[in-house]
Amino acid sequence: MRIARPFRFRRGGEIPEMTLAYETWGELSASKDNALLLTTGLSPGSHARSTPENPAAGWWEEMIGPGRPIDTDRWFVVCNNSLGSCHGSTGPASIDPRTGDPYRLAFPELSVEDIASSSRDLLKELGVDRLGAVVGPSLGGMTALAYALLHPDEIERLVMISAASAASPFAMALRSIQREAIRSDPDWKGGGYAPGRGPKRGMGLARKLGVVTYRSAFEWKARFDRHRVARPSAEPFGVEFEIEAYLQSHADRFVPTFDANSYLYLSRAMDLFDAAEHGASLEEAVARIRARVLVIGVETDLLFPLEQQRALADLFVATGHETVFAPLPSVQGHDSFLIDLPRFSPPIRAFLAR
Amino acid sequence: MRIARPFRFRRGGEIPEMTLAYETWGELSASKDNALLLTTGLSPGSHARSTPENPAAGWWEEMIGPGRPIDTDRWFVVCNNSLGSCHGSTGPASIDPRTGDPYRLAFPELSVEDIASSSRDLLKELGVDRLGAVVGPSLGGMTALAYALLHPDEIERLVMISAASAASPFAMALRSIQREAIRSDPDWKGGGYAPGRGPKRGMGLARKLGVVTYRSAFEWKARFDRHRVARPSAEPFGVEFEIEAYLQSHADRFVPTFDANSYLYLSRAMDLFDAAEHGASLEEAVARIRARVLVIGVETDLLFPLEQQRALADLFVATGHETVFAPLPSVQGHDSFLIDLPRFSPPIRAFLAR
Repeated sequence: MRIARPFRFRRGGEIPEMTLAYETWGELSASKDNALLLTTGLSPGSHARSTPENPAAGWWEEMIGPGRPIDTDRWFVVCNNSLGSCHGSTGPASIDPRTGDPYRLAFPELSVEDIASSSRDLLKELGVDRLGAVVGPSLGGMTALAYALLHPDEIERLVMISAASAASPFAMALRSIQREAIRSDPDWKGGGYAPGRGPKRGMGLARKLGVVTYRSAFEWKARFDRHRVARPSAEPFGVEFEIEAYLQSHADRFVPTFDANSYLYLSRAMDLFDAAEHGASLEEAVARIRARVLVIGVETDLLFPLEQQRALADLFVATGHETVFAPLPSVQGHDSFLIDLPRFSPPIRAFLAR
Repeated sequence: MRIARPFRFRRGGEIPEMTLAYETWGELSASKDNALLLTTGLSPGSHARSTPENPAAGWWEEMIGPGRPIDTDRWFVVCNNSLGSCHGSTGPASIDPRTGDPYRLAFPELSVEDIASSSRDLLKELGVDRLGAVVGPSLGGMTALAYALLHPDEIERLVMISAASAASPFAMALRSIQREAIRSDPDWKGGGYAPGRGPKRGMGLARKLGVVTYRSAFEWKARFDRHRVARPSAEPFGVEFEIEAYLQSHADRFVPTFDANSYLYLSRAMDLFDAAEHGASLEEAVARIRARVLVIGVETDLLFPLEQQRALADLFVATGHETVFAPLPSVQGHDSFLIDLPRFSPPIRAFLAR
């Protein structure tokens, strides 16, 4: 949807108009009390579930639908591609109507709060003023929290999955290195690459390192151990082990689909987010939120370790919120919410059903 | 020391002669029964402790010396720069006497066993036929194990610190990405860079990622949390947080001192090492070793997690070895052996004193 008015960014700057790609499932009730916003991780677009228009499986296909944990017989589900991304929403690769050229690094500094605010603008256009629920994994969990901090009275249920109130320095280090891999690629050209001719090697490296942080050592030991590929690369120091081929296949799939500057902006936004900025203290900021809260975390998550979700849950309890904390023993690390549906479905189903 | 005869590599290839830079502390006894070989991690050279010739602090300064845990009043300590490295020993940056040019990628494929065998050649030249002890951290722990597997009757005490019988796919993934960062830098030139004009950005990235794997999230939370630097970088997406400045300073110190091709060879050697190749099974291979064994590991080690040291210790016990296992609660991750001397000293002192 094109929203033909200026959007102001939290840390300064504005864009004269904004397009947000979105999809919906289910129907908005007459009383408009059944809207559920699904906020996404760094890389997915709005296609969370297949639709008649796009029958391809969505990124959370099994979680959403009639009778599913996010039950579209009850909920009007909205998922939009994040502001700053590149799957149909306005971002650094979009044309600045004021210049006729892509924004590139002239795109304003992006914050997680901007992603939340832009989604709220979209919801207003759809006639939604209050949310029955916001559900977000990873960066989407931060976005859900940002939404609740900015509009504490507009959300009934807040679901944060494998997220945190602020990134740890360990996660920031790993993202900083990913960004440097992109910036170090001569094809990045200071952000000025032509469309489709971006920093492929740097993006491949960034994606590989991302994948390392999204999965778990335990899972890889079981899946790949030290198995070798049938045909090792002829390149010196090239692919020889299955784990290396796995990373390469992830990079090969991802790189052609994602804009490098979008990656930099979204990655940096995750580092910069800090819920504590929304009050005199983190407690004071969170205390104003009126929602019931579900916090889910995974024991093997390297990027957003379980202690961060435990701290979040403790914080919501301490500030008087009805809170459910679901620590899960999934083995797929940070990405478990995409894979381990048998474990993730029950707490989400139960929380949304109440 | 120059050893003017061919050295054959385990996986094929040879070099016509070899130089190994080494240092010693203490005196070899008349009965030659007090030699201790110290095998090193990927980056250090032979300078483990200050000497009259080189009074700069060594990489294990506090561990070695008169009355120290590695007591030079008792032990004749030898530490050499690994074959394939670049701190005085023959490696890819050395001149191939057959061509007059640096070996570069014509250097034969390096194995951990080659590092061990070359050190043994050095010891022979020094008049040492048996070792009272081999002590090695990280890659050095693998080298110590390789030595014992190749020469099971020549070692009385084997000390493996933060090492494993083979790398996990998680550690291999992280090293593979480091190598790709180097190979992706156009200044690598397929390994053909001129001396001193190597892939600085790629090496910087590799070192930063290495440092992430050497320390721990817990330590960084306490040291850096989300503190910002006083003067953020003017570069887009440049250094803004202390954790980023910390990584940058590590890269700035390391890159000028280390040859990129050496890094590739040593890194790959760690991935390829598998003690199980030395027998019909890992158990059978290890059972032949005659040494008493000390295995040390650290709870926060991401690269060689404590389960790997526990498995090693269990393996030595199961194969009839007198074994001491010391799991330590240090917070500095894989690098703890360099830093947490109060915890590392007692088990090493006790084991070597017996």
